[in-house]
This record gives sequence, C-alpha cells and structure tokens, in this order.
Amino acid sequence: MKYISILGSTGSVGTQTLEVVAANPGLYQVSALTAQSNAALLIEQALQFKPEMVVIGDETKYTEVKSALLGLPIQVLSGTEALCEAASLASSDIVLTALVGSVGLKPTIAAIKAGKDIALANKETLVVAGDLITLLAKEHGVQIIPVDSEHSAIFQCLTGERYAAIEKIYLTASGGPFRGKDRSFLTGIGRAEALKHPNWTMGAKITIDSASLMNKGLEVIEAKWLFDLEVDQIDVIVHPQSIVHSLVQFNDGSMKAQMGLPDMKLPIHYALAYPDRIRSDFERFNFIDHPELTFHQPDRETFRNLDLAFKALRMGGNMPCIVNAANEVVVNAFLNDKIGFLEMSDVIERCMEELQFDASASLNNYLETDRHTRIFAGELVTKQVY
Amino acid sequence: MKYISILGSTGSVGTQTLEVVAANPGLYQVSALTAQSNAALLIEQALQFKPEMVVIGDETKYTEVKSALLGLPIQVLSGTEALCEAASLASSDIVLTALVGSVGLKPTIAAIKAGKDIALANKETLVVAGDLITLLAKEHGVQIIPVDSEHSAIFQCLTGERYAAIEKIYLTASGGPFRGKDRSFLTGIGRAEALKHPNWTMGAKITIDSASLMNKGLEVIEAKWLFDLEVDQIDVIVHPQSIVHSLVQFNDGSMKAQMGLPDMKLPIHYALAYPDRIRSDFERFNFIDHPELTFHQPDRETFRNLDLAFKALRMGGNMPCIVNAANEVVVNAFLNDKIGFLEMSDVIERCMEELQFDASASLNNYLETDRHTRIFAGELVTKQVY
Repeated sequence: MKYISILGSTGSVGTQTLEVVAANPGLYQVSALTAQSNAALLIEQALQFKPEMVVIGDETKYTEVKSALLGLPIQVLSGTEALCEAASLASSDIVLTALVGSVGLKPTIAAIKAGKDIALANKETLVVAGDLITLLAKEHGVQIIPVDSEHSAIFQCLTGERYAAIEKIYLTASGGPFRGKDRSFLTGIGRAEALKHPNWTMGAKITIDSASLMNKGLEVIEAKWLFDLEVDQIDVIVHPQSIVHSLVQFNDGSMKAQMGLPDMKLPIHYALAYPDRIRSDFERFNFIDHPELTFHQPDRETFRNLDLAFKALRMGGNMPCIVNAANEVVVNAFLNDKIGFLEMSDVIERCMEELQFDASASLNNYLETDRHTRIFAGELVTKQVY
Repeated sequence: MKYISILGSTGSVGTQTLEVVAANPGLYQVSALTAQSNAALLIEQALQFKPEMVVIGDETKYTEVKSALLGLPIQVLSGTEALCEAASLASSDIVLTALVGSVGLKPTIAAIKAGKDIALANKETLVVAGDLITLLAKEHGVQIIPVDSEHSAIFQCLTGERYAAIEKIYLTASGGPFRGKDRSFLTGIGRAEALKHPNWTMGAKITIDSASLMNKGLEVIEAKWLFDLEVDQIDVIVHPQSIVHSLVQFNDGSMKAQMGLPDMKLPIHYALAYPDRIRSDFERFNFIDHPELTFHQPDRETFRNLDLAFKALRMGGNMPCIVNAANEVVVNAFLNDKIGFLEMSDVIERCMEELQFDASASLNNYLETDRHTRIFAGELVTKQVY
C-alpha cells in the first residue's frame, strides 16, 4: 500500500490522479487532499477517499468544509501555510504536486525536507527554483518523478540508462490550437479559442501556455533540472499527433521515444506505480488509427515565448523566475480578457528587460523576484504599457 | 579491454563489427576471426587485428591462410568443427555470431557452454533451437545480446524494465524492395531486383529474406525466445522509413520505441558496449530529414512467409526448424536462378506439410530435422514439384 498526498486535488491532474487511485483498489491510500477554492469537490473527494487531512486554501470556505466532514477522522485545515503541513504529513510516502504556479514551491520544499518522494505535476516549482529543489532532493535522498507527459516520457526512456550518456533530448509539442497560424490571425483571438486544445484535456492555465508555447518553454527549463542537462542539449519539435511524448538521443547515436495516446492518466499512473509498472485498462495506441506521425520545427517568430524561456534559462539566476511569474500574471489577464494573446509575450519580455537580474541561487531571491515580478507585470497589464 | 571473437568476420555484419572495433582503439581486442571461404579478406583482417586464432571453414583454403600468416602468433584452423574452438577460446569475453543460417547452432552452443556472452547476429540459431539455447544461456549465466536492429531496439527499450511488464511488441519491417507490389508483379522478378534493399546494406541471404518477409517471420520467432513472449504478444508493422527500429507496449499502456538511422553499426556498437553506452561518431538522426514516419499493416496475402513463420511458431517443436532449413534452401536456389520469388513460399509450405512434425525439444531432433528438410526441399526445387 502506497500512501499519497495530493496537492491540488480538485484540478485536472488532481481529479485524474484520484481516478487512478480509485481504479487500483488495494494499491493506494490517500493521506491528504488540498484544494484552493473548490470546497464542494474537495468535500466529495474527502468523503470518498477518506484522507487523514484536507486543506482548503481559501479561508472563507473553512467552515463549509469543516462542517461537512464533522464526525469523521479527518483533520481540516485552511490557509496556504497548511499546504506545507499536508505536504509533510508523516503517513504519506509520496506527494503529488498538482498545484498551478509558483505557489507550489514552499509545499514542495516542505515535502522534500520531510523525505517524501515527489510526483511533480507543478512544473513552475522547477522553473522558479530548479537548482535549489534538485539539490535539496539529492540531499534528502528524495526521488522527483515527473508527471508532465513529456518529462515522464524522458524519464521512462532513461530507465536503466546513465544520464551521462544523454546527448540531447527532444521535447515534443502538439503546437496547440494555433499551430500554423500567423501573428495577424492571433491578434484577434480570445480565451475561448485558446482553450480549445486539439489533443489534451488540461486545466486552463496550462492550456493557454500550450497555445502560446510558453508551456514548452517552461518544460525546457523543467527538463534542464530534472535531467541535469545543458541548455543546448534540449530541443523542441512540433508533433501535432501528440503520440510521441518525447525522445532521448544517446551519445552512441541511438534514440528512445516514449509513446502512447494523449491521456494524462498514463503518466500519473506511471508516477504512482514507479519504479514498478502496474497493469492499466487505458485505451491502447494502435497504428491503424495513427498511421502517420509528423514532426516539424516550431514557429519561433510567431510564438515568441519559446525563445524567451530559452533566453531566461541561458541567463539563469532569477530570470526563469521572472518569466514564470510574468507569465502567470499575463495568462490570468488573458483569461479575464484584459490582454491580447500576442501581448502576453510583450509583457514577459518587458519584465525580463526591466526587472533586476540576480544570479544568486537563493530561495529568498526567487521569492522576492516572484513577488516583484507579479507587481510589475500587473502594472504593465493595467496600464497597457508593453 | 573487452576480448571479442567474431564468427563470420568477412560477411556484412562481420566487417562492420571490425569497423566498430577499429573505431574504438583501446576498448576492444579481437580474439578469434572465422570465415567460410573468403580467405583473402580473412588474411587481411588477421594482419590488421592480430587475433589469437583464425578459422577458415573451407578446408581447401587452409594452406593459403596458413602460409599468409606464417611466423605470426596466430593459430590457423580449418573445418566446421574448428568454429566451436574459436567460439570457446579461453581469452574471449564475448562471441559475436554473424554466421548465416543454422550452421551457427553448434558454435553458439559451444560458446555458451564456455561461459561467453553472445552478441547474436545469427538469428537462425534461435529460430531452430530457441528453447534449448535460451535455457542453456540461463544455466550458464550467459547474456544473449541481440544484434539484429529490431531486437536490439526491443532490448534497448527493455533496459531497466521487467520483462513481465511487456504487453506486446511491434517489430517494424521496411517492407523491402517489393513493398506495395502484388503477386503478378512478383512472378517475374529475379535476384537483381530482390537484392536492392531500399534502406539497409546487408548480406545476400538476409536481403532476400527481407524482400520475401521471411526475415520478419524469423525475427518473430527470434523475439519469442529472446524476450520470453507468447506468439500473440508479437506483432509486425510495416514502416518504410526504417527509423523506428521496433517498439514495446507495456501493461500500463505506455510504449517505448528505439529509433535511429538505418545503420547496422549502431546495434553492433551497442551490443559490444553493453551494458554501457559508448560515444560514437555515427551520423545522427534528425527530424528535418525525416519529418514523417508512416506505418501500415503488412500484406500477408502477397508475402505468405510471414504467416508461415507465425504458424510454425504456434506449432513449436521442430516446425520453426523446418521453415528455416527450407528457407535456406529456397533462398540459395533463388539466388542461383533455380526458383521463382513466389515459389519460395510454396516449397516452405510443402515442407511444413510433408515433413514429420516432432514436438520434442532436443538438439538431435533439430539437427535431424534440419538435415532432412534440406534434402527434401532440395528435391522439391530440383524436381520443380511444389
């Protein structure tokens, strides 16, 4: 029996994780569940999975959750600090971090310090502080198992291989709903079009990131830290069918790809079962339905976020943190119709240019940078100066 | 330093193995070289690689080889029995078996009994006696590392994985020079057309086998034994670009593929370096040159050999041995313009129907079956009765 705490259990990855748990009775037990604001679903999940602890981030909803679970042996907490308690709960073996954005940073650190393995779906944590997080994981003998389909693919391809034998990796990108579109087309589009991902069912933030290629940019940074790579060892290739989830090229010229239907439950299932594989009843890939797999270079002129992320990674220090925080602000603004699709890159670039570059690798630097960037990016959006 | 004996050093795989050895000075030392009849090349190789022993199969060429290497510390032997001596030479760590046909059986057994790891390019040995060979290897703690590109692909995909987690494997087939052709077209073709493989540079026998899909049939049987699979776990898919060398589907629904340019030196290099990976300067795959990978079902009506091989594998016993021996006879006959392309399958099928089925797993059964089948198939070809 493996004990799992799920941070962000009411989101897309969180609910799919609970589907995997429910489909494998006797294998997994839920230790803790946390949600930001969806109290109704959190209560429902708590009643079904009987965790030891639930955390509702939004303190105004504490009473609702507490009273709904009254009489049950479930500790109910509220507030962001309580996330760290859920992350470091003594009974759990593994913490699945499915929070969205850099809010995942502190709970992930708490989980690592408590010696929990991390099933990482919260890529922003590695984007913001990959150096600190991976070092901390090494110090505490903690395994970080990626849940992102691309990184799960790389991770699976590296099973039984020496990381030093990696020559380069290819992260595949579906290209999102706007693949092949030019800047004039993108000027007019809004949240409804951007939220229509052709292959993957995901949360709103990551779906917008996919449409803007920022998701791939963040994944490049995430991959650097997960697999201990140089920037030039990471390449991005557009693969519209989303069947090949990513590839590794080794120093002998051999390559491995991990493949499958685009279903987030597969990498979730893998991360929970790791280092084992456990039988699933997910629909299987077959070549009759997918006789053709195509690949082409990303359009870096139209989708500028990819190069901004590469640039930030090359600079290092707090620059990926600036990109991430600015991106969180602009995606939120875009989802609220306060900024155009193409302007998102403009704000991010402006933040990269104007905010103080700090090469020091410290949590304080990253947290301060995150805070400053949000304020600055928010002002740019409000004043429409970018 | 790894000491290598190469059985069949003057053939396609043999010469490419020596290219790999020459390209990695200080890593490998050649212990023994053997050739059937190409004395001139064997002498040249012996002078360059300074093995401890050379064997020339054709006894009429013994004097030529012996005198050319006079005064050098190289033991020169002749005859097929000497192959077993070369295979079990005390100094070698690994024996690369690149013999063509079931003649590889006895030397492979000798090598395993002497505790040598096997780099297996001689698939017919596993086709004829896969049950005995794999059992023997287990008893002697010997690793069989496949050199066939497809099996090397599967083997690489299984690194770090439990074989019990395999759900199925897909062996990819280029389809050979006659992909998409029908039976009326194939009636008229001869050796010249059949020897023009679109992607791979290989010896004559395997190139004809590729054109007739018998190569894939033999590979299905080889895969059964190498990876301990049921027949229904093995599928064949045509992939004309020969970039994806084969795939494994696991019981959780995840798949892995091994990929690369079609170059036999890559799996050879991998087999010699195993369990390590060693840097190579082989040309690298890139998506710009290969933007499209396609897959389709094999044409089992036109290329009947594939189903004959599957049928033989399902029956077991000496039936794969019958298929293999009959195939060796008809390929030889086809290469000597004594039989048509499509008639090769007819002779093989006739042998499967007429020869005595024997389910017992014994070396004697297989050797006798091999001998009888060659006689019977030879008669069918000579009398043109099939």
